[in-house]
Amino acid sequence: MDFAHDSRTVELIAVVQAFLDEEVYPAEPVLRAELAATPGVWSEPAVVQRLRVSARERGLWNLFLPGAGGAGLSNLQYAPLAELSGRSIRLAPAAMNCAAPDTGNMELLAEFATEAQKAEWLVPLLAAEIRSSFCMTEPDVASSDATNIATSIVREGDEYVVTGRKWWSTGAMNPDAALLIIMGKTDPCAERHRQQSMILVPRNTPGVTVVRPLTVFGYDDREHGGHAEIVFDHVRVPLANLLGAEGAGFAMAQARLGPGRIHHCMRAIGMAERALELMRTRAASRVAFGRPLAEQGVVREWAADARVQLESLRLLVLKTAWLMDSVGNRAAMTEIQAIKITVPTAVERILDHAIQLFGGAGVSDDTPLAEMFAAARTLRLADGPDEVHRMSLGRAELSR
Amino acid sequence: MDFAHDSRTVELIAVVQAFLDEEVYPAEPVLRAELAATPGVWSEPAVVQRLRVSARERGLWNLFLPGAGGAGLSNLQYAPLAELSGRSIRLAPAAMNCAAPDTGNMELLAEFATEAQKAEWLVPLLAAEIRSSFCMTEPDVASSDATNIATSIVREGDEYVVTGRKWWSTGAMNPDAALLIIMGKTDPCAERHRQQSMILVPRNTPGVTVVRPLTVFGYDDREHGGHAEIVFDHVRVPLANLLGAEGAGFAMAQARLGPGRIHHCMRAIGMAERALELMRTRAASRVAFGRPLAEQGVVREWAADARVQLESLRLLVLKTAWLMDSVGNRAAMTEIQAIKITVPTAVERILDHAIQLFGGAGVSDDTPLAEMFAAARTLRLADGPDEVHRMSLGRAELSR
Amino acid sequence: MDFAHDSRTVELIAVVQAFLDEEVYPAEPVLRAELAATPGVWSEPAVVQRLRVSARERGLWNLFLPGAGGAGLSNLQYAPLAELSGRSIRLAPAAMNCAAPDTGNMELLAEFATEAQKAEWLVPLLAAEIRSSFCMTEPDVASSDATNIATSIVREGDEYVVTGRKWWSTGAMNPDAALLIIMGKTDPCAERHRQQSMILVPRNTPGVTVVRPLTVFGYDDREHGGHAEIVFDHVRVPLANLLGAEGAGFAMAQARLGPGRIHHCMRAIGMAERALELMRTRAASRVAFGRPLAEQGVVREWAADARVQLESLRLLVLKTAWLMDSVGNRAAMTEIQAIKITVPTAVERILDHAIQLFGGAGVSDDTPLAEMFAAARTLRLADGPDEVHRMSLGRAELSR
Amino acid sequence: MDFAHDSRTVELIAVVQAFLDEEVYPAEPVLRAELAATPGVWSEPAVVQRLRVSARERGLWNLFLPGAGGAGLSNLQYAPLAELSGRSIRLAPAAMNCAAPDTGNMELLAEFATEAQKAEWLVPLLAAEIRSSFCMTEPDVASSDATNIATSIVREGDEYVVTGRKWWSTGAMNPDAALLIIMGKTDPCAERHRQQSMILVPRNTPGVTVVRPLTVFGYDDREHGGHAEIVFDHVRVPLANLLGAEGAGFAMAQARLGPGRIHHCMRAIGMAERALELMRTRAASRVAFGRPLAEQGVVREWAADARVQLESLRLLVLKTAWLMDSVGNRAAMTEIQAIKITVPTAVERILDHAIQLFGGAGVSDDTPLAEMFAAARTLRLADGPDEVHRMSLGRAELSR
Repeated sequence: MDFAHDSRTVELIAVVQAFLDEEVYPAEPVLRAELAATPGVWSEPAVVQRLRVSARERGLWNLFLPGAGGAGLSNLQYAPLAELSGRSIRLAPAAMNCAAPDTGNMELLAEFATEAQKAEWLVPLLAAEIRSSFCMTEPDVASSDATNIATSIVREGDEYVVTGRKWWSTGAMNPDAALLIIMGKTDPCAERHRQQSMILVPRNTPGVTVVRPLTVFGYDDREHGGHAEIVFDHVRVPLANLLGAEGAGFAMAQARLGPGRIHHCMRAIGMAERALELMRTRAASRVAFGRPLAEQGVVREWAADARVQLESLRLLVLKTAWLMDSVGNRAAMTEIQAIKITVPTAVERILDHAIQLFGGAGVSDDTPLAEMFAAARTLRLADGPDEVHRMSLGRAELSR
Repeated sequence: MDFAHDSRTVELIAVVQAFLDEEVYPAEPVLRAELAATPGVWSEPAVVQRLRVSARERGLWNLFLPGAGGAGLSNLQYAPLAELSGRSIRLAPAAMNCAAPDTGNMELLAEFATEAQKAEWLVPLLAAEIRSSFCMTEPDVASSDATNIATSIVREGDEYVVTGRKWWSTGAMNPDAALLIIMGKTDPCAERHRQQSMILVPRNTPGVTVVRPLTVFGYDDREHGGHAEIVFDHVRVPLANLLGAEGAGFAMAQARLGPGRIHHCMRAIGMAERALELMRTRAASRVAFGRPLAEQGVVREWAADARVQLESLRLLVLKTAWLMDSVGNRAAMTEIQAIKITVPTAVERILDHAIQLFGGAGVSDDTPLAEMFAAARTLRLADGPDEVHRMSLGRAELSR
Repeated sequence: MDFAHDSRTVELIAVVQAFLDEEVYPAEPVLRAELAATPGVWSEPAVVQRLRVSARERGLWNLFLPGAGGAGLSNLQYAPLAELSGRSIRLAPAAMNCAAPDTGNMELLAEFATEAQKAEWLVPLLAAEIRSSFCMTEPDVASSDATNIATSIVREGDEYVVTGRKWWSTGAMNPDAALLIIMGKTDPCAERHRQQSMILVPRNTPGVTVVRPLTVFGYDDREHGGHAEIVFDHVRVPLANLLGAEGAGFAMAQARLGPGRIHHCMRAIGMAERALELMRTRAASRVAFGRPLAEQGVVREWAADARVQLESLRLLVLKTAWLMDSVGNRAAMTEIQAIKITVPTAVERILDHAIQLFGGAGVSDDTPLAEMFAAARTLRLADGPDEVHRMSLGRAELSR
Repeated sequence: MDFAHDSRTVELIAVVQAFLDEEVYPAEPVLRAELAATPGVWSEPAVVQRLRVSARERGLWNLFLPGAGGAGLSNLQYAPLAELSGRSIRLAPAAMNCAAPDTGNMELLAEFATEAQKAEWLVPLLAAEIRSSFCMTEPDVASSDATNIATSIVREGDEYVVTGRKWWSTGAMNPDAALLIIMGKTDPCAERHRQQSMILVPRNTPGVTVVRPLTVFGYDDREHGGHAEIVFDHVRVPLANLLGAEGAGFAMAQARLGPGRIHHCMRAIGMAERALELMRTRAASRVAFGRPLAEQGVVREWAADARVQLESLRLLVLKTAWLMDSVGNRAAMTEIQAIKITVPTAVERILDHAIQLFGGAGVSDDTPLAEMFAAARTLRLADGPDEVHRMSLGRAELSR
């Protein structure tokens, strides 16, 4: 047992840290200004595109992807880098081409796509020339139960016909999100987890209507393409657009979600560390009732609890990454569920304390705290609400 | 001891309930549409003004104000009505002319203003012809400690000169917020709680600059005039604009905050009841893993905990109102602090569970949950962060 | 709505308070010494019997019982008196003949017994000449589900034959517990809630074997007769010993538990108030790191949270009592469940904080804190674990 | 980074596990019976002595001690073994000569004693021929603040004279606890952390009076020598009995407490794993409302939360051990504090849930749960209450 990072990881941590300090943090107010100056524009902000050039030059590119096209890092090596990127959640992941949902989509394509599909979609995604969205959640059903999915993918001759309504298609408001990966049912009569398939639908296919953007608390998340409600009205694509085999949709979704969850958790820890850093500064400088906030008991309690939580949860995330690397995603299922249900909650609590310490500035846009809170809060219900995973984990524990 | 409402209260509860059912709830989507159609407009929405006519006809007007000009209700009688108004927090309080910050400002004027001041400001406020804002919080200091206030009110000849920077001046983005009540220091050398005074400043006085709106978790709260940052640069008003005596500012602020806090708590309970009602509907209709959500254990736990919390906290709020009526606001200080630090936290937790039950719809604008969450969250830091009140209450308890 | 006690209650509060101050608190070390001097003795301590004489003279006798034989108080009037008795939980309730399980047994007899049964058992119980036990819980089944009860009550000729094993028969180690009230099944084939009956069994009936005492966190609770495991091996009693009708056992148990639960909650609040009083003294006198504990933040937080919890929960208990008086125990079911699942948990937390403040003295017998903790902890699982009631309450709330 | 144990650790885990399964668990009822049969006897139970022979044969001896006389294990290697020993907390640590307070005393002697002191005390302690106690806490002061210590150690000629009152001297009720290590002040005027010294006092020295045993909740902890209150009335020992240098007492206490805390945390995790194992068995076999408890939501939540907590906290403990091994106890101070304030609390919560699942059996002695609860609860205030460490950790975090 050894708790030290290997040397490549130590080096990359320093490179990411330098990138943050030198370029990303200074770009945060630039992003804010650019968004304010371009109301209603859903394309990627220019500042993101500018940061990408630099990230790529620094070798911080596609770090999330283990195999060909990626940086060749293990999950354990990527983990602390993803954490750092979470410290500037609106800019750093996108700048390093490591932002959801594109990462999950690239993983799906890397693992399951045909060569032709890879050439058409994976290559430009890896180069950040296009963006993509993953269309799974539906407004009318509890999507945490995959058998509920109502979107149909019906084979008619040499085409598949997609019909349904999706929402929370993150990134899909961005007109450059050229690719939509849709989860639907090809065979509603098959065994429970063999009914679903995935299909690749270009965003500009006739029958695809992006109905409206959704907000998260009051945020539209325009900087990363927002969240769209989309109607698919008899959308026709060639048979070659099927991703993987018919009936493999559920298994592929599970495969996609494992790494997705750990990435989310890593970044969430980074958000909390950023919040804690802001708390330190605030607590040292703000005076109330004759003493700096840093000397007041409740602030120390918050700081102590945050540190303890972050240390223990980071270790759990790292061990999960190590398990994924050493025994595989499926064998790490318990740990993936464990971090899924604990990290966002813990991070949300730390953010809440930081907001409280900042008062009005904490809920406004003068700090990144409120928007990070919205992001962490959303993780508790994204990819299935925590309660579903908690039940599943509890059942497994009781039947060990 | 008797836990039944008196007959007048029972009657008024029915009237408010009917108003909600017949007019307010149906107006909620109308408000949403109107706001969407008028970006950047900070005036009061037409739908609010329309509801006001009806509220007034129904006798639901200025219910919050005990004496002349008000409805003559005790705090205990007003409490359940305020709670009901919280169920449609963006519309009902404003429609009944019972919305903060105007309520607190009207209370201040009713209690401390000269006849001339009343004629100029209180009369039109009671008629909802103008709106107002209360300018207390400052960006540069911890305003929970009143001695920190930096805004100066300096007497020069027959004028006072006001200089300072305020923020979180709720309602002040509304161009019809004709009156600003400013808290500042007239004598920085006086005893700690005698340094502050309040002064009435018309919003259109030279030197008043509304710098920018602030957001709360992404919301601009346009429907009630938002929250402004305002600079006062040597703003001159006549001596007659002083509210109350020099040095009485702190005491008047305390007097204002007592009823303000209890009103906030009443409405917050109403928000939670609304959320619980939404949960009931959702839990009955939504199916996951073969059973309605209402049959799943964790949802029942949430509902049980919510009901228990609401029943006990409502009683505490009602008792606080009874104490204010029977022994006065000052003698009810412990109870006011008690509800200030517990109700918003409990309500926030109920809202959080409701959001979780609704999934994506919960964080979006498709339900009122996310915006109610933002409102409840803000109460934990408004009028001094909870932590300050908790310390004060704890100190009192230990020295009983 | 009125939050003031009526005049009789105010008077009785003063009488009970005087009794506590003048006789009960001083008797606490006497009880401790007597128990230490009489190892293995399960009879009622002499100090309890001595206090009874005084309690009776002061008119503090059978306060819990509403009708004939009792003090004629309503639940609302009894509530604050029961709370006070909880401040010295091992002595005061017993001294006033208001201690479980005798109270519940007397209520059962008062409501359901024949005149002959009353003459034989209720009269001496009201006079505290004998003690009693209630035998419901069984070691082998989850007794929270009444259909699980395995003890059989079989009619054979002019006798009932009782066979089964019970435990947690509180008080039954006391040889003076002359009466055992047993819950068993007379008809296992009847409708779910009509299978159970109750029967009166003198403790000295052949076939009754008191197997062993049980401990609660190491305590044997000798001062009130401990908790026994009892085997009933073909115990024969006359038909006249049946309490109420055959099949009415479940309904009678429910009738018994309603008041029982509210009494437990009242006394538990008294325990917490006692703890808070001890905390105040300790916090004022104990110095660490140069300051009294009373000036340290976390102690203030504990005191504040305790005060808020106690104020709100006391109101909920009082309202429950008022409902029981005005609309009946059955209509107050939701409130009874609500206090059952919240009061002990809240009290336990306050006791935990008090223990922490006292350090080693807190977990030892040098303060009453540890034994009160054990008592409060037990309430969370007595009469059905909280979780069962929480589910039931949640189900009701979701289907309102 | 590597999360796998080394091969020696893996081997030893298997040996300890076999020892538990084959001898320790079966001895638990034997211990219970022996204690019941020998009331008032404070010597070590015969069953413990018997297990020791076997433990020593299996090579499970003095595993806690890194250097000479010990097993030569690192903290990281010892950690999982200590955890396993915690599964049978009353027997396994004592059987392997790895029980507090002897472990800490042996560490002190190994590090700071003279050769003569080692020969006299360390050698028989390592052979388990005698037992020992550590006398630090005093009834009259807050011992978490070392400057409060009132016991005096005064040099008079060629003797030290010890005067003071100690309590919570664990193990000291055992007449075989031949050695008492006392913390007192040799120089009350020295710098804050240089006033204290430690001295070795044979238990049978004139002037030493063991006043009384203390209980923890209702437990006397007789099987490991209980907890004593001891008066030292001008107790005279030779100068050679000073441990280390004058004024080094505080530093030595700190050195002693670091490993002590991590050992406590390891064993506490073992207690929780034992509880979880018991929960699994209970949940599978117990039926209520027609379904095994294992299928009821709240039980799954408890199991899930327990698993997540234990996985993350175990990693934090292991990392702490690794830091102690690699950078030293002082550099691991933050982590030691972190586990000190989180592990016992988390373990207590798991035990509480297990107790709830077992109902009456959980609070009685029919399961080890209640006594483990008492042990875990005590850890929250032993060696300084958690609150002191939380403040210290928070201060450090805010000033990073």
